[in-house]
Amino acid sequence: MDWKPDLSSETPLYQQIKEFIIHKISLGEWAVGTKIPSQRALAEHFGVNRSTVVTAISDLIADGLLEGNTKGGTRVINNSWNLLTASPPPDWSSYVQAGAHYPNQPTIQHINRAEFQEGIIRLGTGELSPDLLPSEQMKEIFAESSTNSFLLGYEEPKGNLYLRKQLAAYLQGIGVNTSPSNILIVSGALQALQLISIGLLPRDSSILLEKPSYLYSVHVFQSNRIKLVGLPMDEDGVLANQIGRYKKGYNASLLYTIPTFHNPTGTLMPESRRQALMNACADEGLPIIEDDAYRELWFDEPPPLPLKARDPHALVLYLGTLSKTLSPGLRIGWVVAPEPVIDRLADIKMQNDYGSSSVSQWAAAEWLGRGLYQKHLVTIRAQLILRRDSTVQLLQTYFAGIASWSVPTGGFYIWVQLTVDVPMQILFERALKEGVLLNPGSIYNRHTGNYLRISYAYAKLHELEWGLKCVAILIRDLVDKKRLER
Amino acid sequence: MDWKPDLSSETPLYQQIKEFIIHKISLGEWAVGTKIPSQRALAEHFGVNRSTVVTAISDLIADGLLEGNTKGGTRVINNSWNLLTASPPPDWSSYVQAGAHYPNQPTIQHINRAEFQEGIIRLGTGELSPDLLPSEQMKEIFAESSTNSFLLGYEEPKGNLYLRKQLAAYLQGIGVNTSPSNILIVSGALQALQLISIGLLPRDSSILLEKPSYLYSVHVFQSNRIKLVGLPMDEDGVLANQIGRYKKGYNASLLYTIPTFHNPTGTLMPESRRQALMNACADEGLPIIEDDAYRELWFDEPPPLPLKARDPHALVLYLGTLSKTLSPGLRIGWVVAPEPVIDRLADIKMQNDYGSSSVSQWAAAEWLGRGLYQKHLVTIRAQLILRRDSTVQLLQTYFAGIASWSVPTGGFYIWVQLTVDVPMQILFERALKEGVLLNPGSIYNRHTGNYLRISYAYAKLHELEWGLKCVAILIRDLVDKKRLER
Repeated sequence: MDWKPDLSSETPLYQQIKEFIIHKISLGEWAVGTKIPSQRALAEHFGVNRSTVVTAISDLIADGLLEGNTKGGTRVINNSWNLLTASPPPDWSSYVQAGAHYPNQPTIQHINRAEFQEGIIRLGTGELSPDLLPSEQMKEIFAESSTNSFLLGYEEPKGNLYLRKQLAAYLQGIGVNTSPSNILIVSGALQALQLISIGLLPRDSSILLEKPSYLYSVHVFQSNRIKLVGLPMDEDGVLANQIGRYKKGYNASLLYTIPTFHNPTGTLMPESRRQALMNACADEGLPIIEDDAYRELWFDEPPPLPLKARDPHALVLYLGTLSKTLSPGLRIGWVVAPEPVIDRLADIKMQNDYGSSSVSQWAAAEWLGRGLYQKHLVTIRAQLILRRDSTVQLLQTYFAGIASWSVPTGGFYIWVQLTVDVPMQILFERALKEGVLLNPGSIYNRHTGNYLRISYAYAKLHELEWGLKCVAILIRDLVDKKRLER
Repeated sequence: MDWKPDLSSETPLYQQIKEFIIHKISLGEWAVGTKIPSQRALAEHFGVNRSTVVTAISDLIADGLLEGNTKGGTRVINNSWNLLTASPPPDWSSYVQAGAHYPNQPTIQHINRAEFQEGIIRLGTGELSPDLLPSEQMKEIFAESSTNSFLLGYEEPKGNLYLRKQLAAYLQGIGVNTSPSNILIVSGALQALQLISIGLLPRDSSILLEKPSYLYSVHVFQSNRIKLVGLPMDEDGVLANQIGRYKKGYNASLLYTIPTFHNPTGTLMPESRRQALMNACADEGLPIIEDDAYRELWFDEPPPLPLKARDPHALVLYLGTLSKTLSPGLRIGWVVAPEPVIDRLADIKMQNDYGSSSVSQWAAAEWLGRGLYQKHLVTIRAQLILRRDSTVQLLQTYFAGIASWSVPTGGFYIWVQLTVDVPMQILFERALKEGVLLNPGSIYNRHTGNYLRISYAYAKLHELEWGLKCVAILIRDLVDKKRLER
């Protein structure tokens, strides 16, 4: 909504608001059945007193266009044309509830919206801070491009061949020997998961994963009636010796894992656990999705080679992405897998979106092919080390005695466990009221409530300081209040 | 496959090929269960005699790595590691068959692959010829961009706000009054269909559509267990007076229609039919997906306003795209719909690919905001008129007496009905052997075999001439042969 009432107009504010709402309804933008924003939200947005909004809405309820309910929500129940004709409007709310895909978790929906609020401090966001994204260099790449190389047409089903060649060379550098025909370009690693869920797994199957896991925060698999079965972790990652038991117990079709700088825990799986995990999966003939989004963000030394680099049985579907290192907005990721799998996923991708942006693919290939990506990684690593160190320092200052954490050796996240008992939903809401957006641990595993995923990648350092201090105060307040109540 | 045998090497060619195949198998690129390319295809690709390939493969069969079957196919049945260990490899072919999503039709898979063959003439391709795509201008836009405006981060769930504002202004110009909050940016109109199929429709529902229709050529809805029910068309488009009967008979949830320069028939629905269709759907409370991909490609006069421009009941989900006019590779399309629908689709899109390329969105907004898009459309229309006229001329020259067609007033396609009896699969294959790729009508409706979708948008004019002449000769040959057999 861009519109705001004209404060200098002679028309009363409530009347202007009334007309605006009628306009939205009559255009069908707020169709019959739509729940309109709350009175408080409208008042804030329009910059008027709540009573002004109440007057406008009361009028419209009296006119028979809106209907209020006891919970305070207001719905559109009619529009001017309906008063003139007898035909039934489609009940869009029933359509919205009918689709097979699950909606996002309410907390995630809340976060997705709040992220775009002016001035909000995002303490959990899983992306690089805008000032770490190489906008200037990206601009240069486009400016220097020769027109010939700049494709505006559709790409091959597996993606731009030049990009796939560059990726094959890049992958060689991390121990993964493959060729362009074994690579599929996707619009971010998340799309790879969506394609796998509809392309390789039957409905009512199940997959194993770490508990907690990023994968719990999206409903890609569940929406296709695939069950997620969490495996226990220790400080070395998922427990390899549990895989056989869980695979048999749940008849699992796949194992999803983030062995390198795990999201959300930051865990780095060492060499020995990687070998144990590969052996366990080979014994069971259990394929693996290796999500390697954070590999390049190491601080002291490169992490052990990917699982895919030690994969004689072709067990591993390997996922990589530029979203965490170069630009999330490019939406460029990749899958490396046996050819029949790549062919299958490419075929479905063609039916779902006809391939990823060719401009993005071209830019990605330039970054890789001209050696710019490797240089950029060096810069980013140095920046992230500084941010990690500062954030750990801030935690020590403000969270001592109320939380514990490990210091990550790469990636974006510190998995902060609150050692005091705090109602997380209330903490989330109070922080938001203070302009601080949190990612509660429950997003990543419904049954663990006392964690926060703190990201040192996104917020500015002074925002991190202000935000963490604010959250610590809120936590201590909540603890004190509880003590008083006892 | 990039590799070719080294003709100057002392190692025999068959031995080089054998080693190459072992390499592919040992890397897991051709995993156990993979069907390797045919002997003929390998021989062509390597530039060797087929007998050389046969020798290499026979050796590998003897080694126990490959297995031939009587139909001539060869599969990988083992790899060197398996000979050493006892563990079972994952049976990837069973995974590939297990997923819920349907594969593309074999003909479409064939077309998708053949499109990237060197030198192929594409007579049915639904996209603008590369020389009609404004690469030079696109390059300038990027070169002129101020860095500030160039976002590399994630966008809002509904897409870049500036782009949505530009689109709202653009839509106003074609009679659609809407606002940015009622617009969702998608990666091409095809993705909108995918989101609708999983977001708004329950499994085992059905949707009505024109017969034939582009929508039959993808399996988006069917893969989500939604049935397609074809409605008859006449020269004005879908028969509005059949909608009530079909809606009731099949308990349909939606009507999908391409009223403006229909794909594949080229039909333009006139004003009167549009009104009749809207009335019929309003009577039934039946929502509509209006796919308006070809609207801007009119030749003599602008087409009637979209259905969405006359939609007091908020029946219409409106789809638009830049793919047919500016650049398919950008992958930018949009949905205009009531807010609850847009919110729902945006939520699912965030779970499927986390938004469309921000670089593409930025470029699209620049084209629209700087008035360049409208100028480009004028150029494209003029070019397409010339191409249509030449193609109609060629049809008159070569297809007289064997086919009939209508002259389209916009869009890309001439829907050519063969008036002689020809086995279409054989025609398709023979044409392909001559380097000419056809889109048979059966793709767009299984039960209509004697049509070709001819596109004047893609091939160069001399290619259109050579290709159409070649196809006409093949058709006449097939007819003559049939006559002789009688």
